[in-house]
Amino acid sequence: MSKYKIHFLPHEREVSVNEGEVLIAAAMDAGVHINASCGGEGVCGKCRVIIERGEVEGGLSEFLSPEDIEKGYRLACQAHVKSDIVVRIPTESAIDTRVLNVAYSPRKTARIHQTDLNEIKEKGLFVPPVEKVFVKLSEPVHGDNIADVTRLINQLRMEKEEHRLEFDLSVIRKIPDILRDAGFAVTVTIARAVREEGKNRVINIQPGDTTGRNFAIAIDIGTTTVFGEVIDLKTGAALAGHGDFNGQISFGEDVISRIVFSEKGEGLVLLHEKIVSTINHVIGRIIKESGVAPDEISTITFAGNTTMTQLFLAVNPRYIRRAPYVPAANLYPPFSASEIGIDLPDHVIALVYPQVSSYVGGDIVAGVMGSGMYHDQELTLYIDIGTNAEIVIGNNEWLVCAACSAGPAFEGGGIKFGMRAARGAIEDFSIDPQTLEPMNITIGRVRPMGICGSGLITAVAAMMEVGIIDSRGKFNRDLDTPRLREHEGVWEYVLAWENVSGIDRDVVLTEIDIDNLIRAKGAIYSGCMTLLAEVGLTIHDLDRIIIAGGFGSYIDLEKSMAIGLLPETEAEKVIFIGNGSLMGARMSSLSNHIRRDVGNTISRMTNFELSETKSFMDNYIAALFLPHTDLNLFPRLKARMEAMREVRGKGS
Amino acid sequence: MSKYKIHFLPHEREVSVNEGEVLIAAAMDAGVHINASCGGEGVCGKCRVIIERGEVEGGLSEFLSPEDIEKGYRLACQAHVKSDIVVRIPTESAIDTRVLNVAYSPRKTARIHQTDLNEIKEKGLFVPPVEKVFVKLSEPVHGDNIADVTRLINQLRMEKEEHRLEFDLSVIRKIPDILRDAGFAVTVTIARAVREEGKNRVINIQPGDTTGRNFAIAIDIGTTTVFGEVIDLKTGAALAGHGDFNGQISFGEDVISRIVFSEKGEGLVLLHEKIVSTINHVIGRIIKESGVAPDEISTITFAGNTTMTQLFLAVNPRYIRRAPYVPAANLYPPFSASEIGIDLPDHVIALVYPQVSSYVGGDIVAGVMGSGMYHDQELTLYIDIGTNAEIVIGNNEWLVCAACSAGPAFEGGGIKFGMRAARGAIEDFSIDPQTLEPMNITIGRVRPMGICGSGLITAVAAMMEVGIIDSRGKFNRDLDTPRLREHEGVWEYVLAWENVSGIDRDVVLTEIDIDNLIRAKGAIYSGCMTLLAEVGLTIHDLDRIIIAGGFGSYIDLEKSMAIGLLPETEAEKVIFIGNGSLMGARMSSLSNHIRRDVGNTISRMTNFELSETKSFMDNYIAALFLPHTDLNLFPRLKARMEAMREVRGKGS
Repeated sequence: MSKYKIHFLPHEREVSVNEGEVLIAAAMDAGVHINASCGGEGVCGKCRVIIERGEVEGGLSEFLSPEDIEKGYRLACQAHVKSDIVVRIPTESAIDTRVLNVAYSPRKTARIHQTDLNEIKEKGLFVPPVEKVFVKLSEPVHGDNIADVTRLINQLRMEKEEHRLEFDLSVIRKIPDILRDAGFAVTVTIARAVREEGKNRVINIQPGDTTGRNFAIAIDIGTTTVFGEVIDLKTGAALAGHGDFNGQISFGEDVISRIVFSEKGEGLVLLHEKIVSTINHVIGRIIKESGVAPDEISTITFAGNTTMTQLFLAVNPRYIRRAPYVPAANLYPPFSASEIGIDLPDHVIALVYPQVSSYVGGDIVAGVMGSGMYHDQELTLYIDIGTNAEIVIGNNEWLVCAACSAGPAFEGGGIKFGMRAARGAIEDFSIDPQTLEPMNITIGRVRPMGICGSGLITAVAAMMEVGIIDSRGKFNRDLDTPRLREHEGVWEYVLAWENVSGIDRDVVLTEIDIDNLIRAKGAIYSGCMTLLAEVGLTIHDLDRIIIAGGFGSYIDLEKSMAIGLLPETEAEKVIFIGNGSLMGARMSSLSNHIRRDVGNTISRMTNFELSETKSFMDNYIAALFLPHTDLNLFPRLKARMEAMREVRGKGS
Repeated sequence: MSKYKIHFLPHEREVSVNEGEVLIAAAMDAGVHINASCGGEGVCGKCRVIIERGEVEGGLSEFLSPEDIEKGYRLACQAHVKSDIVVRIPTESAIDTRVLNVAYSPRKTARIHQTDLNEIKEKGLFVPPVEKVFVKLSEPVHGDNIADVTRLINQLRMEKEEHRLEFDLSVIRKIPDILRDAGFAVTVTIARAVREEGKNRVINIQPGDTTGRNFAIAIDIGTTTVFGEVIDLKTGAALAGHGDFNGQISFGEDVISRIVFSEKGEGLVLLHEKIVSTINHVIGRIIKESGVAPDEISTITFAGNTTMTQLFLAVNPRYIRRAPYVPAANLYPPFSASEIGIDLPDHVIALVYPQVSSYVGGDIVAGVMGSGMYHDQELTLYIDIGTNAEIVIGNNEWLVCAACSAGPAFEGGGIKFGMRAARGAIEDFSIDPQTLEPMNITIGRVRPMGICGSGLITAVAAMMEVGIIDSRGKFNRDLDTPRLREHEGVWEYVLAWENVSGIDRDVVLTEIDIDNLIRAKGAIYSGCMTLLAEVGLTIHDLDRIIIAGGFGSYIDLEKSMAIGLLPETEAEKVIFIGNGSLMGARMSSLSNHIRRDVGNTISRMTNFELSETKSFMDNYIAALFLPHTDLNLFPRLKARMEAMREVRGKGS
């Protein structure tokens, strides 16, 4: 795919983008504001730009007069890049340009870090826990009439060096007929032991050579959402993925309310059935999309927090929410997926990620394993941001972890127009500091229907940096714009008017939303600071920060630091891995070494109870500001805000 | 229990018997004939004897006049020994005595060899594959809130040195509540790995200390009969036992006809369900009798021939009966008994004895393991006599085995009044060579309803020795007795007239019965001789002969040798272990070492196909006589028969 340079005027900024990218996305990347309230669908007509040089496709609109078009005007959200381009953003005064250049820096995103399969292959770690092996046997004759299974075992040992094989009864039942129907040329599916010296289970037999078709499913069981992927165990590629709301949601939004429900009558059975049913729905969808036959699936790996894991396995979670917060088990044995109601053939082996504690569960362990943090020397801070935020610090030598209750703001919960990172969610935002007009970018470039975690972070940060929101999270009541208003006693900013929104109302951001965001980011920030202090480190000692969570496809680092969600540090140190739980489930589907190492890893993970750590509450209260009571902790932000005040002072 | 001496006149023979034994049984032991056709129930009045000294209880009857009683006459089958006794058997002439003493020698029985538990315990081998362990845990508190399962594992490791534990999901589900309900004092049931380094599965958890209540079930799946026992794993004692006909019988009497049936439509499913249902019936009965609660059962061990094993496990047996006769598998994995339809709690582990070949199955392997043959230095011939006879020769260094089709004669099949060794079956027999009157002893000392394997051997041997049956198995047509007659073209001997039988007809032994017996014993004898010759041995090289089979409580060795079922050898070398399959199942319920050794043992068992061994057919044809074409192979019998002829010659 060709790359083109886009030069923005009057900012004099330049970014490189792929052919076909829309100009508004290129502007967002460059840190260039363009008024745009309709999310990118082209219905507000605000994002007028002038193409001074180069070629775009599209961008024509009824909002532009023939003269405008003649002059080179296009709608940035509809104009696709076809060459190197010089594009001018119309501004009203010279001051505009200076303000803009102070207010916006080119975005530093931590884009999703994809698993590097080649690296895994090079290291010899690409050994899925379930593999297929093809063998051609000699046919039994007089004088060589050993049992069918013994014949198979002997050949697998001699030809393929497969040892310590144990055959499931269900496989033995199939063997005599399949061997003879297939002319004694068959493929066996071997589920490898975790330990080198353990037994390797033969879980399936198929006629002929089917080694080219071997698939796994990875499932992240989130409290809010269940994600699944079909993975090709031959190539490591994810063939299809899908997410769906956890069917337990109607019985409680968070783990505590689910546990409470599980304790009532048949509550546990019901919640178990609901999650199994959600998973089955996801599986049905991704199997269909991937074109894989259910019989070609060999294994399914689940990762979820401790409560989700216990509810899924129908293990009573009541002691998770009662002091001293004891989970039932750390490790669960492999079992047949169908045994627990999963709609897959009997041979499919279910593997479940182990837990560290009641509030540091298999989703976090999956992230620590899947990201490679557990075996790397680099000192890493791992943060999984969800309704609960979990924090892990350490490297290949030691690991500490803790959980804190962030609330569901980053997943859209407790936010008036909050939604998860799905089509129609505002995922990126900027604001004109003078006109206070927004630039909304939505997932799918459609009319805004709400705002997801990454949009929320960016919107609050942008408004704070230009002074629309103060450090307490309150709107500046003195500003003159219809977008800022009081509605039923609550101040709010209109992100998208009804006429350009994807719903039948204005899409707004309220002070209550901001307050919930502050509590969420405050919990996470203070959790990180407290845990770092407990092990005698500061943010500057870290080599790397890994962020996981369902924000969308990226997280704006500078903005996340600006609101005080993350400590201010070098953007280069930060990696965003998206859904860490799903990544870990995918990775251990591909490499049995992860399963071997996970037992040792969880025993290395020392769990801190933040609620019992004295300094946590002090840190939390100090973090309930934008970005923090101590702005000196955020020197880059401080410099930007001071510069902004200066140009504003000169301009006014 | 007191022992008393019984001295028989005029034979001048003496035996020692337990107090309370009936005189007729003592006579049988001594080799003393007493006419007795009613099996021991006291309804024929034939077994009149005179108590010359000592004391009996009972034995009075309406068949005896007051004068008879005055003279000391009693019915031998009703008279119980209360002291040392001198008893006279009325005979009609002096010749009687001489003939009797030539014709009958004191019986050499190989009584059932009971498992010597003390020996096993002394050797440190009494380690059941499933054990219970009690632990008291510290309760979780703040600062010590590890997962429940981890707490349990840690305590089991520290206090009981239990390692490599894996918990079943069903057990994990129970743990949180049981721990707290039981004040953290619990008993876990551990199913040990076969191999030292394997994983030990925790299959159950119970509140409090239940280590005193741990039980196993052993099941012999016979083609004709299913036997079960409940075994106390604390003491090793069998608490209850029961046998029942295999519910598959109506679909074929032998394994071949069962396999044929299994190939039709739903035949396999039906046969599988029938055997499971029979086993469930046996289990229900023995659990009830033993007073054990189902939840206290930890393991169930099955032993059966290859076809029975495959039908039980629903593994298609069609290739067992087709050249080159290939079984599906040698080894089967442990599984949950309930999984296959067995009416036991989910935690109960099912273990299945492995097979050597299509016709040397788990029943034989069980016998080889349970009898200790596999680890003893003594060179042993092991014969399991059933519908199929299986032969194993060897010791702790090498083993060879073979199977031959004997037909069901020894289990009562193909015998007009044949029955299995149950109440009412003639199990012992002698005949007066002059009056040709029988002495029938039945199981349960009730009226004869038929004849079982041991009775058949003894009856044919006794009649042959006194010349009623010739070496071709034909009755001497010239003898003058109403008991010998031709009925519908077939010659037969009336064992019990209708008026003393337990059924509404005469109980007879026909020439067809004798012919079937000859074929059966000929197959077994020639099998033994062929296999011995194949490994370059003769009968004299053997240190020991172990006989297994469902004959009743004992086998009369001299008689078995007389008909040519067994090679003539020293009786002291012969051990009868009864149901070897059940014994093996019982033994491996008590000692995990047997499970460890069985894999190696079956790989050492070299299987010979007798049908492909040239000399077998020659040996077989030579053995289709009583006892054999070559009487010189049976020197003791030859001497007895010559002596008999001599006294007869002189007497007539």
